[in-house]
Amino acid sequence: MSRPAPRKPEYHKINKDLFVLTYGALVAQLCKDYEKDEDVNTYLDKMGYGIGTRLVEDFLARSCVGRCHSYSEITDIIAQVAFKMYLGITPSVTCNNSSRNEFSLILDKNPLVEFVEELPAGRSSLCYCNLLCGIIRGALEMVHLAADVTFLQDRLRGDSVTEIGITFLKKLDEKKYRRKK
Amino acid sequence: MSRPAPRKPEYHKINKDLFVLTYGALVAQLCKDYEKDEDVNTYLDKMGYGIGTRLVEDFLARSCVGRCHSYSEITDIIAQVAFKMYLGITPSVTCNNSSRNEFSLILDKNPLVEFVEELPAGRSSLCYCNLLCGIIRGALEMVHLAADVTFLQDRLRGDSVTEIGITFLKKLDEKKYRRKK
Repeated sequence: MSRPAPRKPEYHKINKDLFVLTYGALVAQLCKDYEKDEDVNTYLDKMGYGIGTRLVEDFLARSCVGRCHSYSEITDIIAQVAFKMYLGITPSVTCNNSSRNEFSLILDKNPLVEFVEELPAGRSSLCYCNLLCGIIRGALEMVHLAADVTFLQDRLRGDSVTEIGITFLKKLDEKKYRRKK
Repeated sequence: MSRPAPRKPEYHKINKDLFVLTYGALVAQLCKDYEKDEDVNTYLDKMGYGIGTRLVEDFLARSCVGRCHSYSEITDIIAQVAFKMYLGITPSVTCNNSSRNEFSLILDKNPLVEFVEELPAGRSSLCYCNLLCGIIRGALEMVHLAADVTFLQDRLRGDSVTEIGITFLKKLDEKKYRRKK
């Protein structure tokens, strides 16, 4: 992993609360629009996918992330650089299998739910933050990495931690996913 | 205007692009939901109002803004402290009448439209950023200041600048709007 110090111009930084509350308004709107939790989850993932595909170029430019040599390095960059940059947090990473293609991001705290005390009534299957899964999936796909990204645990649903699972689906092909120079 | 240096803990700061793209997804969803631009505008304003009422306490705590003595000072704080904190920009302020209750915020650049090249087809009356008007209105109401807040000009609609108009509706009553100690 080759990573020079990221450029961080101050004008790109904002207080996160406006984002967190606007995200809440988006989820509330989707809950109005779709009766089933699964549909809201799917839609959030789909929206996130679109956002991820647009965010990734800017992320690569701004973070100066270099070539990676393993899924483990890629997951570390998602946790340590991308989450830090976009949400101000650094999840811890665990590898979940011996093939080293399944990882978990463990979020000690989740800024997106800071203003959320509990899931809305009758919405027990809602993945409130499913936009994040879509964003990760979309961003990875833009660097030619197919992945399943889902919430494995969620404090909002009563779990003890919040955990995002990332399963990379293809054999690693360095030529394909490295950043174009 | 008495204003000590604001506290700015780093963990409250995030890169704004995720917010900007998520906001775009929210507007797109509302355009799906509501056929008329006016309805989308109204809904964005309403959502913003709710966000503003929640954001204001945090803003007052974090910014350490003190007591204001005029609408002009209040508008300056919105432009120089709130916009800077939440959007990373500082609009210029003009006063538009001799009663000194009508002001404009002139936005040289508007981060919320950074990824937007033009209004969606058939959406020429859309106030894309109307959430901002609602937020300002909601936040002001929480400190007992009634105001009309609307977009007077918008570059996205072909105007030469983006201008938010704020008209304070009541005679200033210091006891009511000053921050409770």
